[in-house]
Amino acid sequence: MNNSARSSADVQNSRALEYKRHTLAHLLAAAVLEIYPDAKPTIGPAIDKGFYYDFEFPADKRPTDKDLKDVEKRMRKLLPSWKEMSGTEVKLEAAKEHFNHNPYKLELIEDIMVKNEPVTLYTAGSFTDLCRGGHCDSPAADIDPDSFKLTRIAGAYWRGDETKTQLTRIYGLAFETAAELKAYEEMMREAEKRDHRKLGKDMDIFEFDDDVGPGMPLWLPNGTTMAEELENLAKEAEFSAGYQRVRTPHIAKQSMYLKSGHLPYYEDSMFPPMEYEGGKYYLKAMNCPHHHKIFAARPKSYRDLPLRLAEYGTCYRHEKSGELFGLMRVRMLEMNDAHIYCTEEQFADEFRAVNDMYLKYFKIFGIEKYIMRFSTHDPKRLGDKYVNEPELWKKTEDMVRKVLVDSNIKFIEVPNEAAFYGPKIDVQVWSAIGREFTLATNQVDFAVPKRFGLTYTDKDGAEKTPLCIHRAPLGTHERFIGFLIEHYGGNFPLWLAPIQVKVIPVSEGQLEAARKIQESLRRDMIRAELDDSNDSFGKKIRNAKTSRAPYFIIIGEKDLTAGKVTLESRDKGQIGQLSFDEIQKRFAEEIKNRS
Amino acid sequence: MNNSARSSADVQNSRALEYKRHTLAHLLAAAVLEIYPDAKPTIGPAIDKGFYYDFEFPADKRPTDKDLKDVEKRMRKLLPSWKEMSGTEVKLEAAKEHFNHNPYKLELIEDIMVKNEPVTLYTAGSFTDLCRGGHCDSPAADIDPDSFKLTRIAGAYWRGDETKTQLTRIYGLAFETAAELKAYEEMMREAEKRDHRKLGKDMDIFEFDDDVGPGMPLWLPNGTTMAEELENLAKEAEFSAGYQRVRTPHIAKQSMYLKSGHLPYYEDSMFPPMEYEGGKYYLKAMNCPHHHKIFAARPKSYRDLPLRLAEYGTCYRHEKSGELFGLMRVRMLEMNDAHIYCTEEQFADEFRAVNDMYLKYFKIFGIEKYIMRFSTHDPKRLGDKYVNEPELWKKTEDMVRKVLVDSNIKFIEVPNEAAFYGPKIDVQVWSAIGREFTLATNQVDFAVPKRFGLTYTDKDGAEKTPLCIHRAPLGTHERFIGFLIEHYGGNFPLWLAPIQVKVIPVSEGQLEAARKIQESLRRDMIRAELDDSNDSFGKKIRNAKTSRAPYFIIIGEKDLTAGKVTLESRDKGQIGQLSFDEIQKRFAEEIKNRS
Repeated sequence: MNNSARSSADVQNSRALEYKRHTLAHLLAAAVLEIYPDAKPTIGPAIDKGFYYDFEFPADKRPTDKDLKDVEKRMRKLLPSWKEMSGTEVKLEAAKEHFNHNPYKLELIEDIMVKNEPVTLYTAGSFTDLCRGGHCDSPAADIDPDSFKLTRIAGAYWRGDETKTQLTRIYGLAFETAAELKAYEEMMREAEKRDHRKLGKDMDIFEFDDDVGPGMPLWLPNGTTMAEELENLAKEAEFSAGYQRVRTPHIAKQSMYLKSGHLPYYEDSMFPPMEYEGGKYYLKAMNCPHHHKIFAARPKSYRDLPLRLAEYGTCYRHEKSGELFGLMRVRMLEMNDAHIYCTEEQFADEFRAVNDMYLKYFKIFGIEKYIMRFSTHDPKRLGDKYVNEPELWKKTEDMVRKVLVDSNIKFIEVPNEAAFYGPKIDVQVWSAIGREFTLATNQVDFAVPKRFGLTYTDKDGAEKTPLCIHRAPLGTHERFIGFLIEHYGGNFPLWLAPIQVKVIPVSEGQLEAARKIQESLRRDMIRAELDDSNDSFGKKIRNAKTSRAPYFIIIGEKDLTAGKVTLESRDKGQIGQLSFDEIQKRFAEEIKNRS
Repeated sequence: MNNSARSSADVQNSRALEYKRHTLAHLLAAAVLEIYPDAKPTIGPAIDKGFYYDFEFPADKRPTDKDLKDVEKRMRKLLPSWKEMSGTEVKLEAAKEHFNHNPYKLELIEDIMVKNEPVTLYTAGSFTDLCRGGHCDSPAADIDPDSFKLTRIAGAYWRGDETKTQLTRIYGLAFETAAELKAYEEMMREAEKRDHRKLGKDMDIFEFDDDVGPGMPLWLPNGTTMAEELENLAKEAEFSAGYQRVRTPHIAKQSMYLKSGHLPYYEDSMFPPMEYEGGKYYLKAMNCPHHHKIFAARPKSYRDLPLRLAEYGTCYRHEKSGELFGLMRVRMLEMNDAHIYCTEEQFADEFRAVNDMYLKYFKIFGIEKYIMRFSTHDPKRLGDKYVNEPELWKKTEDMVRKVLVDSNIKFIEVPNEAAFYGPKIDVQVWSAIGREFTLATNQVDFAVPKRFGLTYTDKDGAEKTPLCIHRAPLGTHERFIGFLIEHYGGNFPLWLAPIQVKVIPVSEGQLEAARKIQESLRRDMIRAELDDSNDSFGKKIRNAKTSRAPYFIIIGEKDLTAGKVTLESRDKGQIGQLSFDEIQKRFAEEIKNRS
C-alpha cells in the first residue's frame, strides 16, 4: 500500500472520525433512554457519514421522525457532562446483572462468552453500554455539538434476520466540523434536485416499462442523443489511440461460456439459458469471449500486437429486482468496452495508455476528484471465486501495482474484489456536487486467453499466449449518463445537450426568418428547435429555459433589420447581436472542442 | 395491377419462356432415354432460369457431371426433329399401358384419376410424356439450340420425401436467346468471384464461430467499419428527414409479445424464451413493440405527429439451420429500422418521403435497377396468418396502391405475402453485375398501434389511434453488406472502404515522412495504413492492390524534394504529384459527397 492514496495521516483522521461517530451512537442511546425509559438499546455502530442505534420500543411508544428533534436536543444537553469516556473489563456475571432487563445485550454477552473474549463496559456521563471500545476520550471536548444531526427513523430486524424482532433504527450524520455537516447536507439537497431518476423523467431521457421488464431502460430520443455523443467521443478517442472496432452478437452457445469460465464462475450474474436446437444459448454478460473469438478468427503474429478491439456492446446481467436503482443498477449494460491483447513487455505501456484515456475523459467532463480502487484476489478463494493460478495472480498484481506506483496515480488496494480472471481497477469519481460514483473498470486477464487457446507467433517462431486488458473508461451508458445527469444537474454542455439551440422569433413577423435559421443549423447537424408557437415572447423564453438548451437564438424586428440575431447562453446570459456566420463558427468550435 | 411493372406483354414473354423451359425438360428426358434406355423419367418442370428433370437410373449406370455434355449434344441432335409438339387426351388404361414399366408415372396417373382430371400425353419427335401441357408449339423453330445448357447433377427424393427413392436430378439453364444465356453465365462467373462469403473472408469482413452459433456473424474490424459508415449515412439522412433516434433492449417479457401479436402470429420465427423471475423473456425479433412503448411513454398530441423513431436495432430470428446462407440468411439482424406514427391524412406524404429516401440511397450506391414488391393479404387467411380486420386491410392496401401509382413507382403486386399486421413492400434491387437481391422493406401497420392502446389527442380533443409505417431502406447490415460486397466486387468507394489509403514509402529514406503523412490523415479520421515493411517497392504496391484501398500515396525521393507526394487511385491509376493539402481536400470532398 506504499503509494496509495490513504496516507497514514488520512488513516488517523478517518479513525478519529469513526471514534467520534461511535461515541455519538452511545450518546444517542443515552438520550433515548432518558426520554423513553422503556426502550431497550441493542447495537449502535459508526457508519459511513454518521452512525445509528437500533432499539426495541414498547409498541405504543415508538418515536417517529418528528420526535428526532427532541432526542437531538437531549443529546446536546447531555454532551457537556460527557467529560470523559472509559472502559472497564468486567466479569460475565456483573455484565449480565447490569443488562438483566435487556435480552439483546444478554444475547451479545453470550456471544462474547462463546468466543472467550473479554467483556468490557464503557461509561460516559451516567450512561454505560456493553462495547468493544473505539471512542473519543473526552466527548465533551472532542465533539462540536453542531457537527452532528439525527436524520431519520427506519425499521431493522434484530441481527438483520427478518424472522426476528423488528427494531427501530435511528440514523444520524456526523462530521469533523459543523461546516462539513452543513456542506454535506447542502450536497444532498442539491443531489436530490439533480436525482437522475427525476431529471431523467423531466428531460425525457429514459423510461422503464413493465412489459419490457425491470432494470431495462428504453432510451428516449434525448437519452439516445447523449448515448450517441458519448459513442462518438469514444470512437474518436479510440481511433486515435489505435483501437479497431468490432461488433458481436448478444448471444452465444453454452460451450462458449464453459470455455470462458463464465459458467462456473459467473453463472449467478447471467440470464437463464434458451433451449435451442438441442443445446443452450445464453445472453452475453460480458463482451470478452466474443472478442477472444475475433482474435482467434485469424492467425496472429507479434506484429499484430498490441491488438485493441473495441465495441459498445450491450450485455445482460442478473441483478436482484430489489437492488435495481434507476440507471445506476440495471440489467442491461451498454459498455464502452475494449480488450487489448498484448505481450508482457507491452503491458505497462498499454496499461498506462488506458489510464491516460481515463484522465483525458475526466478533463472533458470536468471530473476533478477521482481515485482508483485496485481489487486483488484472496488466496483462500482460489479455485472457487478465482481461477486457481496462484503464481499468475501474484505476478499480474505486482505488474499492475508497479504501473500505478510508477505513474503516481492515486489508488487504494482492496483485497478479495478482483474479477475471476485477474485483478481489476474500479474508478471512483466525485460529481460536481461532491457525490461519489463508481464508473469505470480496467482489468487484467491472464487466464481466459489461455482457456480460449489464443496465441500469437513470436519473433522466434514460438506460439505464445497474450495478456488481455479489459477496459471500459466511460463505463456503461446507463451508469455514465445517470452520473452525467447529476454531475451537470441536467445543464449539459453544448456537444452533449439533447436540444442544443432554441430558435425564438420575438413575434409572428420573424417566424420565417427563424425557421430558416433553424434549418441552416440542422444542415450543420446541430440539434436546433424552433418555437413556432403562438405563445408570448416571455412564455417562449421561459419554455426555452425549461428545455435547458445551452443556447437561445432570438430574432426580433431589429435583428432582422440588422441582418443579425441575438444570442443568449443558458449559463452566461445574453451574449449579443451576432451574424449567423459568427454563430455557426462559435457553435462548430465549441462542439468540436467539447468545451 | 394497373400501373404495376409487369405489363401484359411482360407476362406473355415470361409465359413463352416458361413454355420453352418446360419443353426443354421433355427434350432432356428424350435425350437421356436414348443414352440410358433403363432410366425411368419421373417429373421435369420449368424453373427460374431453366428446367430440371428427375430420373431413376440403375445404380451402376448413373450419369455424373462429366456425362452432361453428351446428353446436351443429344438434345441438340434431337431438337430439329421436334417440328411440333401436341397433346392428346387418352383413356386411363391406355396411359397405364404406355407407362407400365415406370412406377413413378403410374403413381402420377393414379393421382390424376383420384382428382378426376383428364389424362393427357404430349408427344414431340418420337418421345411421349405424361403432361398437363404448356410447351412450345414448334420446338425446332422456337428454340435456339445455343440458348440452353445442362449445368449439374444433384440428388432429389421422389416427391421431395426423404423416406422415398433417391432420384437423380439434371439441371439446365435456358433463356430466350443464346446471348442472354451467355450473359447470365458471365454474370454467374463474376458473381462467383464476388461471392460475399469468399470476399468477406479474404477481406476480413466477417466470420462465423461454432461456439457463438450458426447464422450469427462476428463483424471483424473491416466489416464493423462498413457497418458504422452505413449507420452514419442513415443517421444523417434520417436527421435531415426529421427522424429521432431511440435505443431499446434486446429482450422483453412475454406480455409484450402477446400484446403485439408476435406470439400468436410470429412465434415460429422467434427464439425460445428464457424462464426468468417466474415468467418468460424473449429476444426481440422486431423492434416495433419497443418503439410502440416509447411512443406510449409520454402523452402525445396531433402536434407530435408525424413522430419518426429510428434505431439500428439488432433482432434475433429463428431460421432453419439448413437455410442459413452467409450474410444473406442469418439469425441476427441489425436493422436500419424506424417507425413513423402518423395520421391518415399524413400517410401519403410520409410514405412518399420513405420512397424518396430509398431512391436517394439507390443513387449513392449506384443501384440503377429496382422494383417494389407490394405484398397484400389473403382474405382466406384472416384470423390465422393475418389480423382479422377485413375493412382495414382493404383500406390500407388501397392507400398504398394509390401512393405507388401516383408516384409512378415500378411495382408488382403479390397476394398472400403481407406482414401479419398490414401490407408490405419489399424492395428488390439488381447489383452492378445484374444479380437480384431483396433488400429493404416498407410496411403499413393498422393493427398493432391499436393493440398497444397508442393514441394521440387530436385538435378536437378526441383520442385517436395513429397509423404506423415500418421501414428499413438499408435493410439489415448483414444482407446489405453482403449485397455491397458483391455489388462492388470488394472495390468499395472511399467513404465505405475499410482501408481508405495505403501510404507507401519507396524506400527506407522516406519512411519517416510517410509515417507523418499517415498520422496527419488519421488525425482527419481517415483510415490510412502505412507500409513500414522491408518489402521491395514492387511488393509494397502489389500488397496495396490486394488491400483494395481506393488510394495509394507513394513517397519517393523526388516527392520528398518537391515537398509533395504521388497519388494513385485503385480504379483510375496514377493521378499525379500533389501537395498534402490538395490530397486532404480531395479526400474530404470525396468522403463528404460519398462519391
